[in-house]
Amino acid sequence: MRAMQILEFGKPLVLRDIDIPKVNYNQVLVKVEANGVCHTDLSVRDGTIYKRVNVKPKLPLTPGHEIAGVVAEVGDNVPLSKGDKVLVNPWIGEGSCYYCRIGEEQYCDNPTWLGINTDGGFAEYVVVPDFKYLYKISNLSPIEAAPLACSGVTVYRALRLANLDPSKSVLIIGVGGGLGSMAVQIAKNVYGSLVIGVDINEEGLKLAERLGADYVFRVNEISEIMRVTENRGVDAIIDLVGSNIEKYYPLLAKLGKYVKVGTFGGTLPQEAGLRLHSMGWQFLGTLTGNQRDFLSVVKLGENGKIKPVVTTLKLEDANKALENLEKNKITGRQVLIP
Amino acid sequence: MRAMQILEFGKPLVLRDIDIPKVNYNQVLVKVEANGVCHTDLSVRDGTIYKRVNVKPKLPLTPGHEIAGVVAEVGDNVPLSKGDKVLVNPWIGEGSCYYCRIGEEQYCDNPTWLGINTDGGFAEYVVVPDFKYLYKISNLSPIEAAPLACSGVTVYRALRLANLDPSKSVLIIGVGGGLGSMAVQIAKNVYGSLVIGVDINEEGLKLAERLGADYVFRVNEISEIMRVTENRGVDAIIDLVGSNIEKYYPLLAKLGKYVKVGTFGGTLPQEAGLRLHSMGWQFLGTLTGNQRDFLSVVKLGENGKIKPVVTTLKLEDANKALENLEKNKITGRQVLIP
Amino acid sequence: MRAMQILEFGKPLVLRDIDIPKVNYNQVLVKVEANGVCHTDLSVRDGTIYKRVNVKPKLPLTPGHEIAGVVAEVGDNVPLSKGDKVLVNPWIGEGSCYYCRIGEEQYCDNPTWLGINTDGGFAEYVVVPDFKYLYKISNLSPIEAAPLACSGVTVYRALRLANLDPSKSVLIIGVGGGLGSMAVQIAKNVYGSLVIGVDINEEGLKLAERLGADYVFRVNEISEIMRVTENRGVDAIIDLVGSNIEKYYPLLAKLGKYVKVGTFGGTLPQEAGLRLHSMGWQFLGTLTGNQRDFLSVVKLGENGKIKPVVTTLKLEDANKALENLEKNKITGRQVLIP
Amino acid sequence: MRAMQILEFGKPLVLRDIDIPKVNYNQVLVKVEANGVCHTDLSVRDGTIYKRVNVKPKLPLTPGHEIAGVVAEVGDNVPLSKGDKVLVNPWIGEGSCYYCRIGEEQYCDNPTWLGINTDGGFAEYVVVPDFKYLYKISNLSPIEAAPLACSGVTVYRALRLANLDPSKSVLIIGVGGGLGSMAVQIAKNVYGSLVIGVDINEEGLKLAERLGADYVFRVNEISEIMRVTENRGVDAIIDLVGSNIEKYYPLLAKLGKYVKVGTFGGTLPQEAGLRLHSMGWQFLGTLTGNQRDFLSVVKLGENGKIKPVVTTLKLEDANKALENLEKNKITGRQVLIP
Repeated sequence: MRAMQILEFGKPLVLRDIDIPKVNYNQVLVKVEANGVCHTDLSVRDGTIYKRVNVKPKLPLTPGHEIAGVVAEVGDNVPLSKGDKVLVNPWIGEGSCYYCRIGEEQYCDNPTWLGINTDGGFAEYVVVPDFKYLYKISNLSPIEAAPLACSGVTVYRALRLANLDPSKSVLIIGVGGGLGSMAVQIAKNVYGSLVIGVDINEEGLKLAERLGADYVFRVNEISEIMRVTENRGVDAIIDLVGSNIEKYYPLLAKLGKYVKVGTFGGTLPQEAGLRLHSMGWQFLGTLTGNQRDFLSVVKLGENGKIKPVVTTLKLEDANKALENLEKNKITGRQVLIP
Repeated sequence: MRAMQILEFGKPLVLRDIDIPKVNYNQVLVKVEANGVCHTDLSVRDGTIYKRVNVKPKLPLTPGHEIAGVVAEVGDNVPLSKGDKVLVNPWIGEGSCYYCRIGEEQYCDNPTWLGINTDGGFAEYVVVPDFKYLYKISNLSPIEAAPLACSGVTVYRALRLANLDPSKSVLIIGVGGGLGSMAVQIAKNVYGSLVIGVDINEEGLKLAERLGADYVFRVNEISEIMRVTENRGVDAIIDLVGSNIEKYYPLLAKLGKYVKVGTFGGTLPQEAGLRLHSMGWQFLGTLTGNQRDFLSVVKLGENGKIKPVVTTLKLEDANKALENLEKNKITGRQVLIP
Repeated sequence: MRAMQILEFGKPLVLRDIDIPKVNYNQVLVKVEANGVCHTDLSVRDGTIYKRVNVKPKLPLTPGHEIAGVVAEVGDNVPLSKGDKVLVNPWIGEGSCYYCRIGEEQYCDNPTWLGINTDGGFAEYVVVPDFKYLYKISNLSPIEAAPLACSGVTVYRALRLANLDPSKSVLIIGVGGGLGSMAVQIAKNVYGSLVIGVDINEEGLKLAERLGADYVFRVNEISEIMRVTENRGVDAIIDLVGSNIEKYYPLLAKLGKYVKVGTFGGTLPQEAGLRLHSMGWQFLGTLTGNQRDFLSVVKLGENGKIKPVVTTLKLEDANKALENLEKNKITGRQVLIP
Repeated sequence: MRAMQILEFGKPLVLRDIDIPKVNYNQVLVKVEANGVCHTDLSVRDGTIYKRVNVKPKLPLTPGHEIAGVVAEVGDNVPLSKGDKVLVNPWIGEGSCYYCRIGEEQYCDNPTWLGINTDGGFAEYVVVPDFKYLYKISNLSPIEAAPLACSGVTVYRALRLANLDPSKSVLIIGVGGGLGSMAVQIAKNVYGSLVIGVDINEEGLKLAERLGADYVFRVNEISEIMRVTENRGVDAIIDLVGSNIEKYYPLLAKLGKYVKVGTFGGTLPQEAGLRLHSMGWQFLGTLTGNQRDFLSVVKLGENGKIKPVVTTLKLEDANKALENLEKNKITGRQVLIP
């Protein structure tokens, strides 16, 4: 089968022809029909992610963790059938560590992360080690479903940590990107909160407004945010960019939560510590989500309540897709079709 | 001032001309601009509500607890100004009982409930004993705002108790009435759940669909509900009618919650007890909401995320409005204009 | 190996010599060192439980679901070693149904319940189908650990549903039995609530007092309960008996929760429905607990914060142990030693 | 009456003879029988607190916010009687701001804080502006009760934010002081978590052990903490000192919460930002608690589940008490008796 693989970190992916893997017991072979391209794939290709997460891959490695497709083969313990349409949860826990037992498998001590430390979806087929991480889909197409697996789950979880309700407001930084456009829809449909977006990209702002943001602002207009929140500030900030926390955290209302998303860098603002108690502020980190978050996102998609904004490319164009991301040329999500 | 008052329980209201009350300290005089008419007003008029709640009124009594208007006079400790547009939270706690201290003032041991045990809004003016129970409004008109005070808060709270999320479904019984049309909008906008409605009224079903219900069914079609929930049943039932619980509770999924709303009658189904543990079912009662629920509902209204469906009548037509309710002629909410 | 098995429902268990099973992949063979005897074992022996839960066994069946022991053999995918001391969570989910995915495996659509629909711990060895359901223990002995697996987890979950905090009180009905003595310790150590116990058994009341109940009452003294709760009533009732709900529910305070535990019968009180809303009452069913509940209970035991009250018998005395339970002769928990 | 007052910031308090205030409407005059001395009183005396909180006092000011005593006079709207024994919640909200409405009065936009921006309890009498902030006590003596009002509530809230359960561990930094000794008791009695304490004071460590800490360590022994948490690290840190966050935060387990307590300084650790997402860490600020927290703490005290460790001094020795605090000479809490 064809696969776009990393042979050496920091180099472009290489198209290779490799064997289709066999599966047994709880394993499932999935024929990939769509694979979303994520910022994390850049740090996988460059190898930089492995400094920040506790998993080690072997090369060659097939990246790709936003995978939707069709069941092609099943192990003998698997309650799925060939031909079932599925979305893959790529954040697979080993099952018996503290984090798996409290239902936070994405923080497993010994995880299998598809496309990160084992072969992922930039290929015609992928092995999913445990059927429990496959979700049947019927209303969504693979192209619409794929981006839910990482960008969808990540922002769903981030918004859940923000503990929103209709009396609150939320500011989404980077509202026009793949994660941002999903975050707007979830904030609007699931919490009834006031949704405010910021982006450097003019087109992204328009997209966010179309998807239901109550207010969008350019980066140089953020003082307007105090006005539209009756001078309280925002109750939550979902930071999808991570590079400018010093500038945004003073917009937090009392008891406000700053949710820092994803595997991006970004230091904590030292001075915020001096006001942390009197303001009741919280700085929260988050990384993808658990099986329960995943299920909620799949249902939102299946019930037509959120819809990823996507453009499609061929599997062989994986390097081009990564380059587009690197150059910040993209509104919404790119999806590779094998 | 004019007021429609109860002189004797069980008799029609009587139009009377009475003095405009004085206010001091924390009290506020509100000029009533709109007052929603609620099923509870029927049991106030008939006196039957006083068998079920621990408050006693003196006659004559002015009913009316869904009040919006304008501040007319303020006590000397009140941080509001004449002319401020306000919505009244009529469920006023005494402040120092257990329930007030845990933030559930609607269960106060010694409450002041406007229109129930003290004069309410079927009049030109009403005294609100404590400014803390007034909410400024700016985007909503009084007519749109009034029904939020009881029907809005009641269903908001009921849905909150149901602990919904996007992976869940909710069945609203009586989806076409004043409470039901609000419940659809809240379930849809605040939880992202699958929303299913049932009603005996064909027009009500159409309204619910227009307001965003995913599915609506006639009473004789409820077996369809299993189908649209993948044979799991519904995760929550919001029962706004209360008369047919035996028929509906078997539709509950495992871990499902049956939320019985309002001051209506209705016994618990004995046989459900035998499956309560193996199904993990819950039967929950609820009555209006607390200040936090109230704030959330006001914000949903102010931010344009919910909109009561209303028809208006003159204050003097209060008896006609009650009759319409009694005869079940109404879709949405009736509002009296003094 | 020796096993005490059901050959026919309703008849005494029979001692048999059967083969030691083989294990593979995720499976583990555990050498049983202690097995608690539970009321549920009576309804397993009699077959009555299968009317109430959605699992079907084949005979002969080895009962026993409170199992502690030592790892004897492991499948090739199991991160445990021979000789590891373990407690078994017998409430095993299939993994991909709705309930498994939301982390409530005990409500799995297709469960494997040891001692209920597959062979359990009334034997020298037991096969655990998935290592994820084994918990290493180091401080607890198998005899102390075994009762945590059902009686411990069941009351832990019941108390968690009651949503207690230090401002609240809880009434435990059947406080002197195997579940009750555990419930007292958990309520006291984990919630800081006022703990009140009721029992028909005088010795059980003394035990509950020794384990930390703030108040204990005989069944004919329950009017005292209003006095010690400042006439509010109790915020939660944990009913471990199930036969007298009509008598106890009026003791609930406003917003009180009635938690009905286990697989016992007991209908719901019809009349409670008429006060459900005005009191804000809740009637909740519960059945064992999930992996997270299990972990918490194991930790409470390992950290010395709870301690089952046990008496030991030989495996061959299983029928006698069941008879003791039937005749209500027991304070604390009986544990069989193979 | 006698009062120890601030005439000039940064100078010692001065004993003065001033008029006993009058009360009306919702106000209550309390005869002070005990007043706890808090670190915050140092920053009140020096005026430094007013840079960090949004309240401004006028001089002369009577400090003191941990007040217990007896009702001496009541306004005409007050449901209390002369002679009632009471504990004062000094964190009084105005009632209609966002934070009051969501039940977080301690973050009120326009608060009255006794001893901070209005006269407090370093005197024979104090005016409490609203009876809702008085809690009747019957089992506790005023001396035992007073420290609950700030040190008790502060650590109760901090521990509540830490979201503990029996599967988790908590590290209390400064475990031997007035807050720390309370925190140990609450963590142990209310959450069933593993409680670990650190202090620089040898006597404080012994006290913490006696009050129920599972482990205590000297500051140079903190590597031991990884060992007693099975190398996971601690699930929560309650930092009652604030000066050494860089040293302690790396002890946090994945998903761990760092709760920074009180009005102390202390910047946030910049580098923690780079691991915030991959570790799922949270940095939380907190300041006293709300009415619900207060009620829980009062109940813990009244039910004998926590007991402040106190030494008593005369009102006139207020300056000596502050000096003792400044020089870190104190284990437990000092209480002034007028």
